[in-house]
Amino acid sequence: MRAAPSQEEVRRHNLGTLLRFVHLRGPASRATLAESLGLNRSTIMALTADLTAAGLVREELPRRPGRRAGRPSLVVRPESTRVYVLAFDAGVDRLAVARVGLGGEILDRRETVRDRSSFDPNDLVGALAGAARSLMRKAGRDSVCVGAALAFPGTVRRSDDQIMFGPNIEVGDLSLGDVLSRRLGLGIPVAVRNDANLGAQAEHERGAGVGCDDLIYLHGDVGVGGGIIVGGRLLGGQDGFGGEIGHMVVNPGGRPCACGSRGCLEAEVGERTLLDHAGREERPDLIGRDAVRAIVDAADRGDVVARDALHRVGTWLGLGVANLVNVFNPGLVIFGGTLRDIYLGSAAQVRSKVATSALAAPRERVRLRTAELGDDTTLVGAAEFAFADVLADPVQVLARLRSPEGSAV
Amino acid sequence: MRAAPSQEEVRRHNLGTLLRFVHLRGPASRATLAESLGLNRSTIMALTADLTAAGLVREELPRRPGRRAGRPSLVVRPESTRVYVLAFDAGVDRLAVARVGLGGEILDRRETVRDRSSFDPNDLVGALAGAARSLMRKAGRDSVCVGAALAFPGTVRRSDDQIMFGPNIEVGDLSLGDVLSRRLGLGIPVAVRNDANLGAQAEHERGAGVGCDDLIYLHGDVGVGGGIIVGGRLLGGQDGFGGEIGHMVVNPGGRPCACGSRGCLEAEVGERTLLDHAGREERPDLIGRDAVRAIVDAADRGDVVARDALHRVGTWLGLGVANLVNVFNPGLVIFGGTLRDIYLGSAAQVRSKVATSALAAPRERVRLRTAELGDDTTLVGAAEFAFADVLADPVQVLARLRSPEGSAV
Repeated sequence: MRAAPSQEEVRRHNLGTLLRFVHLRGPASRATLAESLGLNRSTIMALTADLTAAGLVREELPRRPGRRAGRPSLVVRPESTRVYVLAFDAGVDRLAVARVGLGGEILDRRETVRDRSSFDPNDLVGALAGAARSLMRKAGRDSVCVGAALAFPGTVRRSDDQIMFGPNIEVGDLSLGDVLSRRLGLGIPVAVRNDANLGAQAEHERGAGVGCDDLIYLHGDVGVGGGIIVGGRLLGGQDGFGGEIGHMVVNPGGRPCACGSRGCLEAEVGERTLLDHAGREERPDLIGRDAVRAIVDAADRGDVVARDALHRVGTWLGLGVANLVNVFNPGLVIFGGTLRDIYLGSAAQVRSKVATSALAAPRERVRLRTAELGDDTTLVGAAEFAFADVLADPVQVLARLRSPEGSAV
Repeated sequence: MRAAPSQEEVRRHNLGTLLRFVHLRGPASRATLAESLGLNRSTIMALTADLTAAGLVREELPRRPGRRAGRPSLVVRPESTRVYVLAFDAGVDRLAVARVGLGGEILDRRETVRDRSSFDPNDLVGALAGAARSLMRKAGRDSVCVGAALAFPGTVRRSDDQIMFGPNIEVGDLSLGDVLSRRLGLGIPVAVRNDANLGAQAEHERGAGVGCDDLIYLHGDVGVGGGIIVGGRLLGGQDGFGGEIGHMVVNPGGRPCACGSRGCLEAEVGERTLLDHAGREERPDLIGRDAVRAIVDAADRGDVVARDALHRVGTWLGLGVANLVNVFNPGLVIFGGTLRDIYLGSAAQVRSKVATSALAAPRERVRLRTAELGDDTTLVGAAEFAFADVLADPVQVLARLRSPEGSAV
């Protein structure tokens, strides 16, 4: 129970709110900002001046001035190329690193294939750091990196970014964020978060979930991850482990799961199970998304075995979704990663199971959708997370990063 | 994205914060308030003066002055007997109505047995309204009723308090809150909310969950309800249907459920199933809590059939809890209503199933507890909900209620 904020806290809050507005919604006139944020224009001018001085936004004449008489309202534009973050996405088969500018534009990116049989975490760190350094070399000399975050397919403890459980990429006890941060040498920490949690935030802020404050994001890679937005905020739980939908048991006594239990959603709808049902486990050349897509394509062409495999998986996926609909009453359930393909190939089964297993009231209010950010959902989520500090307290964070003790790049 | 609040909003927020503090934590000195709320003492004095003028608190010398030299700090005390709410609790077998004072004290109460075979909603309304009127007759003439709320065992739509699904008490299309409000004639609305949702809030604010911002409350009456606190706030979902844990399918193809699905948690651990397993369905004289307690007692005395029935139910309950632990990473799971008894009679099975089906990381952080408010959990939740308006904007709400157009009692 805290009382209302001080004047200085109000100013910081307003600076962050204005910056977040142009970051998420794009350049905006002073008039639009004043109206949208409920502040008068002199306050907007003062805030914009502070953000301009810090190098976070610039003001310019609108490219297409309106028809209204009089002086056009200046447009406030985020300094997209000068202020950026590093976003890392560790997929089981694919590593992606991007330099993302304030405003959300992906300025530059690197992707490499990851070898599933690699069990040396140094390979992972080496590949991510190498790609990031190559991106940074191409960044302008007056640009500044304001944050970095890694999306990881595992359960991550919020207090120290430690990976507690992540059977699909071996990292042992390695403090992945710390090691990566040292390798980058930027003097800024690299936050590590669950990939599906970040995907949920990305879809909520920039994807299929914009405007929907209660949504569930299901992410398929090899396993099944989840991220849940409740009342506009990510469900983290007590320690940041929240959203492990993949380990909700949907079929007691069902298929064994990597977590040690049986019949988890992940065990019933994960990649290995789908491949198994489709009789594709003998083709080790085809794994991951390519293998899943091949099954969906085969089913489309009338392959009975592929279709049956998708139907079996879709029925369990539908039961999992029904449970989530009952427990969360979400406005949206979004399927991303390989679950995007699996859902598209089994939508009828998913919907049919939701129809029989979810209560009418929440069922009639939920929409099922695929991730709008496509393969970049988790990467964009990492970028948004990396921007969090500067959006919370823009001027202070920039001052710190640009001070002699801080590290400007 | 809103900017920071105005001065007037700050004042209202501070008034509400101060009033909420003494409402939930009891009388507090000005010094304690200043420190706890992060405000200076002159602000506390001004706020207290406003609340005193509105008749919401009074200031008095501490009953046991401290040993410190100098003038003792005045103690701010909620006007418990003059400012109250009406709390209604519609259990399947028991109706409870209470007059609850600001500060949370139950000033007076009425309880009546409800006949399960009654399908006339007018019986329900009549019994609740009659009990409330008898309570109000005993209230002081200078007292004021500032809100009313009803805990109901069903899915309730937040926008209009309509009951969407509630198979255990028949109300049809009746707008229960509106009808009850008219019967009371107080000129104040009667909010209707899901009983387990209210129970979760009550345990969070005044029970086993104080200080824990991520918790799950499971409520057994005939069926199984749920209320979930995420980041300190009730999970309502898009329409207020959130928390229907009882209709999470734990046993696909299992026992038929009143919702039309099969193998829901409610179908596997509800009262009828327990009685069925225990071979007690032939004793129609013993129903509800009494019947559940009789089975727990029999198991305690070594009755093998009763023990086996509890074990079967406890295993499904454990699986449901394991799923919730994985999805929510809660600090606490609290068992209330008849699930309190069932949990106490099957804790070993519940814990064993959680041990095998929940991920280690969240499992090691969760505690399982019984409701600290006992049989009053949902009733207290209704009272807290009824206080919400006056706590959000104390002076305005009181002024409105006491104005000639408002209705003072």
